[in-house]
Amino acid sequence: MKIYTRHGDKGKTQIIGASMIPKSDSRVEAYGTVDELNSWIGYTASILTGKTQEMRAELEEIQQILFDIGRDLATISTDKKHEYVFTDDLSAKQTKWLEDIIDKYVAAAPKIDRFILPGGSPEASALHVARTITRRAERRIVALQEQDSINSNTLVFINRLSDYFFAAARYANVKNDQDDILYRNGNPVFK
Amino acid sequence: MKIYTRHGDKGKTQIIGASMIPKSDSRVEAYGTVDELNSWIGYTASILTGKTQEMRAELEEIQQILFDIGRDLATISTDKKHEYVFTDDLSAKQTKWLEDIIDKYVAAAPKIDRFILPGGSPEASALHVARTITRRAERRIVALQEQDSINSNTLVFINRLSDYFFAAARYANVKNDQDDILYRNGNPVFK
Amino acid sequence: MKIYTRHGDKGKTQIIGASMIPKSDSRVEAYGTVDELNSWIGYTASILTGKTQEMRAELEEIQQILFDIGRDLATISTDKKHEYVFTDDLSAKQTKWLEDIIDKYVAAAPKIDRFILPGGSPEASALHVARTITRRAERRIVALQEQDSINSNTLVFINRLSDYFFAAARYANVKNDQDDILYRNGNPVFK
Ligand code: B12
Ligand code: B12
Ligand code: B12
Ligand SMILES: C[C@H]1O[C@@H](n2cnc3c(N)ncnc32)[C@H](O)[C@@H]1O
Ligand SMILES: C[C@H]1O[C@@H](n2cnc3c(N)ncnc32)[C@H](O)[C@@H]1O
Ligand SMILES: C[C@H]1O[C@@H](n2cnc3c(N)ncnc32)[C@H](O)[C@@H]1O
Ligand SMILES: [Mg+2]
Ligand SMILES: [Mg+2]
Ligand SMILES: [Mg+2]
Repeated sequence: MKIYTRHGDKGKTQIIGASMIPKSDSRVEAYGTVDELNSWIGYTASILTGKTQEMRAELEEIQQILFDIGRDLATISTDKKHEYVFTDDLSAKQTKWLEDIIDKYVAAAPKIDRFILPGGSPEASALHVARTITRRAERRIVALQEQDSINSNTLVFINRLSDYFFAAARYANVKNDQDDILYRNGNPVFK
Repeated sequence: MKIYTRHGDKGKTQIIGASMIPKSDSRVEAYGTVDELNSWIGYTASILTGKTQEMRAELEEIQQILFDIGRDLATISTDKKHEYVFTDDLSAKQTKWLEDIIDKYVAAAPKIDRFILPGGSPEASALHVARTITRRAERRIVALQEQDSINSNTLVFINRLSDYFFAAARYANVKNDQDDILYRNGNPVFK
Repeated sequence: MKIYTRHGDKGKTQIIGASMIPKSDSRVEAYGTVDELNSWIGYTASILTGKTQEMRAELEEIQQILFDIGRDLATISTDKKHEYVFTDDLSAKQTKWLEDIIDKYVAAAPKIDRFILPGGSPEASALHVARTITRRAERRIVALQEQDSINSNTLVFINRLSDYFFAAARYANVKNDQDDILYRNGNPVFK
């Protein structure tokens, strides 16, 4: 197998349902950023310690789902042959799955009403980085949506995903006995 | 507490002083990138070793300041109720604080007149990554400034911050007895 | 030496062959992203373990080449005094060098015909992150190319570089006895 085909050497590439589009296209930007997020999640999973091993299966499930989402984002809207794989049912089920874990993690961490500094143990910090890359991916998907129609289910899951990473980061600090540090000039922001 | 409100599921969100704007807005992009930087700094702090522990307090102080900066960036310019929190005085004082540390770190590292490869020990390498994410955040703030007025003090601090990370990365290598590797085809660039 | 000159405090900066341009310019974005990639490669090299030490020299060589590429990207196209340093000969030679390593690494890893989840050992995961930052840099270079002419040799090398990181990540997992996990809903995509 040759993984390099040299076809993209001039800056154009293939997506699903179209021949060649520029790599700078907002669609390529969107699923490319999801791929970056997915890789960072892989890195985060690779540095989990004994105390946070239970997150490994969750992170792997999220990676699988991000591939379904990436596939829909990589499909041009004019393509009739392909159907979106991240269906309403799948999206509802998997977003609910995230929400239940969020509720569990939030309940296990000390109550806060102010912003916290993103950090703590290496895995908590990596989860905060995942949170912010998820939000970057969300911004790129919204920018794509302004250019062309997308599977809007993807945005729901991605929005919840950054909240999952916030809750998971706090939970990882609980497991590692590390207190979150509050933003010193903050007012109460969480209700 | 529910951290997920589901309000942002369609791609719009709240900022300070405005109702709902698209998540793809250059203002959201700017403070979102500052949040990503802040999270990466958290990760960097989490992998400091015994030899670079003295940087922990500095990194935490920088995280606090980035929250002040983020707050001003998250405030729409037409908002009359909110005043910028990163005042001229604060900005002057905290930029000076960075400059003094830069001078100390630069004095402690071998003199160079050429570019170095960003790398070395894990913490030095992470500081170089912080340097480049700071510069990405700077580019996003400049792009916002082209769309809407901002607190220009934020740009001064962010510009100095990437120089801090350069100096800190070199200092971390000194502490870890790792020589920086020079760019082989470089001419003298530093004066 | 003062590394901070304060010249860029208002959002403009110098490039090669021009006085001051906005930091938000697509040219600054392109070489700034190459700098971010280069720093991440430094981080990746810093966490290589005994089993993947052989990659250290490769990563350092790639960092050197990215400086040549960065220099050409930092040179404005109207500049007559400077010549591109990443010449046709250099580019052909160094792209071939990458292709030979890719072939070696692909041959050493189990054959796959489906996408894999980016992850595994910390170094394999970091190599996948490098893969996706390389692709982000590629998108930024393509966007610059739509605004102004560039040294097109840079795109060829960068395109092959992300395939190198894919092959290297898989190879690192082989060395660490970690199986790659397949995307569960995938069809055969690799030929
Ligand atoms: C989208 C995409 C990606 C996305 C994946 C998106 C996601 N899901 O998140 C991302 C950006 C992550 C990606 C990454 C990579 N990719 Co890619 N990717 C593609 C692309 C454009 C589509 C692949 C795809 O999903 N096809 C699946 C579906 C939709 O298409 P399909 O198989 O034709 O399926 C249809 C039919 O088969 C039919 N069908 C399918 N199943 C069934 C079953 C039944 C019963 C029936 C009736 C019908 C049916 O229905 C489908 C819809 O019509 C292809 C190029 C192309 N246009 O095919 C390259 C491609 C597969 N990628 C390629 C490469 C090299 C890579 C990378 C190695 C690049 C890199 N250096 O990073 C990585 C590897 C990533 C990994 N982790 O393994 C190469 C592979 C070259 C080769 N050797 O063959 C390709 C071919 C592009 C190229 N260069 O030409 N990629
Ligand atoms: C900006 C912002 C952010 C920024 C913070 C920016 C920065 N500083 O760097 C960023 C992007 C980092 C962020 C992240 C998150 N955020 Co946020 N964020 C906001 C936002 C828009 C403003 C918050 C803020 O700073 N308010 C402070 C100030 C300016 O407003 P204020 O409290 O009203 O203060 C005024 C008055 O109180 C008065 N006042 C204040 N003090 C005093 C004192 C005196 C004496 C007087 C007289 C007056 C006075 O003056 C102020 C100015 O008028 C709010 C939404 C909103 N519009 O409120 C969401 C919000 C707080 N965020 C929210 C969430 C969920 C998050 C995240 C968890 C999201 C995620 N998954 O990543 C993270 C958590 C980050 C962390 N580390 O803790 C939710 C919280 C939901 C909840 N449960 O209540 C909110 C409400 C948005 C929403 N979804 O509806 N956020
Ligand atoms: C491009 C650039 C970068 C790029 C490098 C790009 C790349 N290669 O990947 C990036 C973005 C990475 C970068 C980063 C940094 N940079 Co810088 N960078 C520059 C810039 C714009 C050009 C430097 C360069 O490559 N010059 C080399 C060549 C092309 O120019 P030249 O030396 O004049 O060479 C010509 C002549 O000398 C002649 N020539 C050369 N050799 C020979 C030989 C012979 C025989 C002959 C006849 C002729 C000849 O031909 C050349 C072509 O005409 C300068 C500003 C400027 N305009 O000079 C800042 C500059 C060097 N950078 C600076 C700084 C501070 C940094 C950072 C520390 C910033 C930060 N905080 O991250 C980092 C350090 C990075 C590191 N790893 O060491 C400062 C240095 C300040 C100082 N103390 O002197 C400068 C001066 C900008 C400024 N602030 O004013 N930088
Ligand atoms: C918590 C706050 O974060 C901002 N916000 C919401 N979504 C994103 C995103 N994808 N990227 C950056 N910032 C975002 C909004 O201003 C919200 O109120
Ligand atoms: C050292 C060189 O880096 C470039 N430069 C200055 N600021 C930024 C930034 N935010 N991002 C990327 N590159 C930048 C300029 O070209 C400067 O001269
Ligand atoms: C494997 C698939 O990845 C996509 N692709 C090619 N180059 C890039 C890039 N720089 N960034 C993101 N995605 C890219 C194309 O759709 C290709 O077919
Ligand atoms: Mg949200
Ligand atoms: Mg600067
Ligand atoms: Mg490619």
